[in-house]
Amino acid sequence: MGRIVVDIMPKPEILDPQGKAILGALPRIGIDSFTSVRQGKRFELATEGEVTQKDLDAAKEAATELLSNPIIENVVRVEAVEE
Amino acid sequence: MGRIVVDIMPKPEILDPQGKAILGALPRIGIDSFTSVRQGKRFELATEGEVTQKDLDAAKEAATELLSNPIIENVVRVEAVEE
Repeated sequence: MGRIVVDIMPKPEILDPQGKAILGALPRIGIDSFTSVRQGKRFELATEGEVTQKDLDAAKEAATELLSNPIIENVVRVEAVEE
Repeated sequence: MGRIVVDIMPKPEILDPQGKAILGALPRIGIDSFTSVRQGKRFELATEGEVTQKDLDAAKEAATELLSNPIIENVVRVEAVEE
Protein backbone atom coordinates (compact mmCIF):
# COMPACT_ATOMS: atom_id res chain seq x y z
CA MET A 1 0.00 0.00 0.00
CA GLY A 2 1.21 3.51 -0.80
CA ARG A 3 0.13 6.88 0.49
CA ILE A 4 0.03 10.38 -1.01
CA VAL A 5 -0.37 13.48 1.16
CA VAL A 6 -2.15 16.52 -0.28
CA ASP A 7 -1.93 19.78 1.67
CA ILE A 8 -4.29 22.67 0.93
CA MET A 9 -4.00 26.15 2.51
CA PRO A 10 -6.11 29.30 2.19
CA LYS A 11 -4.52 31.85 -0.16
CA PRO A 12 -2.49 34.40 1.89
CA GLU A 13 -4.78 37.27 0.97
CA ILE A 14 -7.90 35.38 2.08
CA LEU A 15 -9.28 36.19 5.55
CA ASP A 16 -8.83 33.19 7.90
CA PRO A 17 -11.29 33.71 10.80
CA GLN A 18 -10.59 30.19 12.14
CA GLY A 19 -6.88 30.94 12.32
CA LYS A 20 -7.57 34.28 14.02
CA ALA A 21 -9.85 32.60 16.59
CA ILE A 22 -7.10 30.09 17.42
CA LEU A 23 -4.47 32.84 17.67
CA GLY A 24 -6.78 34.64 20.10
CA ALA A 25 -7.29 31.50 22.22
CA LEU A 26 -3.61 30.53 22.57
CA PRO A 27 -2.84 33.01 25.40
CA ARG A 28 -5.54 31.26 27.49
CA ILE A 29 -3.28 28.20 27.60
CA GLY A 30 -0.23 30.35 28.25
CA ILE A 31 1.15 30.39 24.68
CA ASP A 32 2.22 33.67 23.11
CA SER A 33 5.01 32.48 20.77
CA PHE A 34 3.12 32.91 17.52
CA THR A 35 2.34 35.97 15.39
CA SER A 36 -0.27 34.26 13.20
CA VAL A 37 -2.09 30.95 12.79
CA ARG A 38 -3.57 29.67 9.52
CA GLN A 39 -5.70 26.57 9.16
CA GLY A 40 -5.92 24.41 6.02
CA LYS A 41 -6.71 20.84 5.07
CA ARG A 42 -4.57 17.71 4.88
CA PHE A 43 -5.62 14.65 2.86
CA GLU A 44 -4.15 11.16 2.80
CA LEU A 45 -4.89 9.19 -0.39
CA ALA A 46 -4.11 5.44 -0.15
CA THR A 47 -3.10 3.40 -3.21
CA GLU A 48 -3.27 -0.37 -3.73
CA GLY A 49 0.44 -0.88 -4.46
CA GLU A 50 3.47 1.41 -4.39
CA VAL A 51 2.74 5.01 -5.51
CA THR A 52 3.28 5.43 -9.29
CA GLN A 53 3.66 8.62 -11.36
CA LYS A 54 0.11 7.95 -12.62
CA ASP A 55 -1.11 7.99 -9.00
CA LEU A 56 0.72 11.27 -8.34
CA ASP A 57 -0.79 12.82 -11.47
CA ALA A 58 -4.26 11.64 -10.37
CA ALA A 59 -3.67 13.10 -6.87
CA LYS A 60 -2.68 16.47 -8.41
CA GLU A 61 -5.82 16.45 -10.54
CA ALA A 62 -7.99 15.50 -7.54
CA ALA A 63 -6.31 18.28 -5.52
CA THR A 64 -7.24 21.01 -7.97
CA GLU A 65 -10.59 19.60 -9.19
CA LEU A 66 -12.11 18.32 -5.95
CA LEU A 67 -10.05 18.78 -2.80
CA SER A 68 -9.49 22.53 -3.10
CA ASN A 69 -11.35 25.64 -4.21
CA PRO A 70 -8.82 27.29 -6.56
CA ILE A 71 -10.41 30.72 -5.98
CA ILE A 72 -9.56 30.84 -2.27
CA GLU A 73 -7.11 27.98 -1.72
CA ASN A 74 -3.64 26.88 -2.86
CA VAL A 75 -2.46 23.29 -3.25
CA VAL A 76 0.83 23.51 -1.35
CA ARG A 77 1.96 19.88 -1.46
CA VAL A 78 1.24 16.62 -3.30
CA GLU A 79 3.78 14.03 -2.20
CA ALA A 80 4.15 10.27 -1.78
CA VAL A 81 5.01 9.43 1.83
CA GLU A 82 6.64 6.37 3.34
CA GLU A 83 4.37 3.92 5.14
CA MET B 1 9.99 35.05 10.40
CA GLY B 2 9.76 31.30 11.01
CA ARG B 3 6.99 28.82 10.41
CA ILE B 4 5.90 25.61 12.13
CA VAL B 5 3.52 23.16 10.45
CA VAL B 6 1.18 21.08 12.62
CA ASP B 7 -0.66 18.20 10.96
CA ILE B 8 -3.66 16.57 12.66
CA MET B 9 -5.42 13.43 11.33
CA PRO B 10 -8.44 11.47 12.56
CA LYS B 11 -7.43 8.31 14.44
CA PRO B 12 -7.48 5.31 12.04
CA GLU B 13 -10.33 3.63 13.91
CA ILE B 14 -12.52 6.76 13.70
CA LEU B 15 -15.17 6.89 10.93
CA ASP B 16 -14.25 9.57 8.36
CA PRO B 17 -17.48 10.40 6.45
CA GLN B 18 -15.82 13.35 4.70
CA GLY B 19 -13.08 11.09 3.38
CA LYS B 20 -15.65 8.51 2.25
CA ALA B 21 -17.67 11.20 0.44
CA ILE B 22 -14.56 12.34 -1.43
CA LEU B 23 -13.62 8.76 -2.32
CA GLY B 24 -17.11 8.32 -3.71
CA ALA B 25 -16.88 11.53 -5.79
CA LEU B 26 -13.48 10.84 -7.38
CA PRO B 27 -14.82 8.50 -10.13
CA ARG B 28 -17.02 11.39 -11.33
CA ILE B 29 -13.84 13.19 -12.41
CA GLY B 30 -12.42 9.98 -13.85
CA ILE B 31 -10.11 9.08 -10.95
CA ASP B 32 -10.10 5.54 -9.57
CA SER B 33 -6.49 5.24 -8.37
CA PHE B 34 -7.20 5.41 -4.65
CA THR B 35 -8.48 2.83 -2.15
CA SER B 36 -9.23 5.33 0.65
CA VAL B 37 -9.20 9.07 1.39
CA ARG B 38 -8.85 10.59 4.84
CA GLN B 39 -9.19 14.29 5.65
CA GLY B 40 -7.43 16.07 8.50
CA LYS B 41 -6.24 19.56 9.40
CA ARG B 42 -3.03 21.44 8.63
CA PHE B 43 -1.95 24.48 10.65
CA GLU B 44 0.81 27.00 9.97
CA LEU B 45 2.06 28.85 13.05
CA ALA B 46 4.24 31.90 12.29
CA THR B 47 6.97 33.08 14.68
CA GLU B 48 8.60 36.52 14.96
CA GLY B 49 12.19 35.30 14.39
CA GLU B 50 13.74 31.94 13.52
CA VAL B 51 11.95 28.95 15.08
CA THR B 52 13.44 28.05 18.50
CA GLN B 53 13.07 24.88 20.59
CA LYS B 54 10.77 26.89 22.87
CA ASP B 55 8.57 27.66 19.86
CA LEU B 56 8.48 23.97 18.89
CA ASP B 57 7.55 22.98 22.44
CA ALA B 58 4.78 25.63 22.43
CA ALA B 59 3.51 24.30 19.08
CA LYS B 60 3.41 20.75 20.45
CA GLU B 61 1.45 21.95 23.48
CA ALA B 62 -0.92 23.97 21.28
CA ALA B 63 -1.37 20.89 19.05
CA THR B 64 -2.54 18.66 21.88
CA GLU B 65 -4.34 21.29 24.01
CA LEU B 66 -6.15 23.33 21.36
CA LEU B 67 -5.63 22.27 17.74
CA SER B 68 -6.67 18.62 18.13
CA ASN B 69 -9.20 16.54 20.01
CA PRO B 70 -7.03 13.79 21.54
CA ILE B 71 -10.02 11.43 21.76
CA ILE B 72 -10.57 11.25 18.00
CA GLU B 73 -7.45 12.80 16.47
CA ASN B 74 -3.68 12.20 16.33
CA VAL B 75 -1.02 14.90 16.04
CA VAL B 76 1.03 13.43 13.18
CA ARG B 77 3.58 16.19 12.65
CA VAL B 78 4.98 19.29 14.38
CA GLU B 79 7.87 20.63 12.32
CA ALA B 80 9.66 23.88 11.51
CA VAL B 81 9.56 24.54 7.76
CA GLU B 82 11.78 26.71 5.57
CA GLU B 83 10.33 30.04 4.43
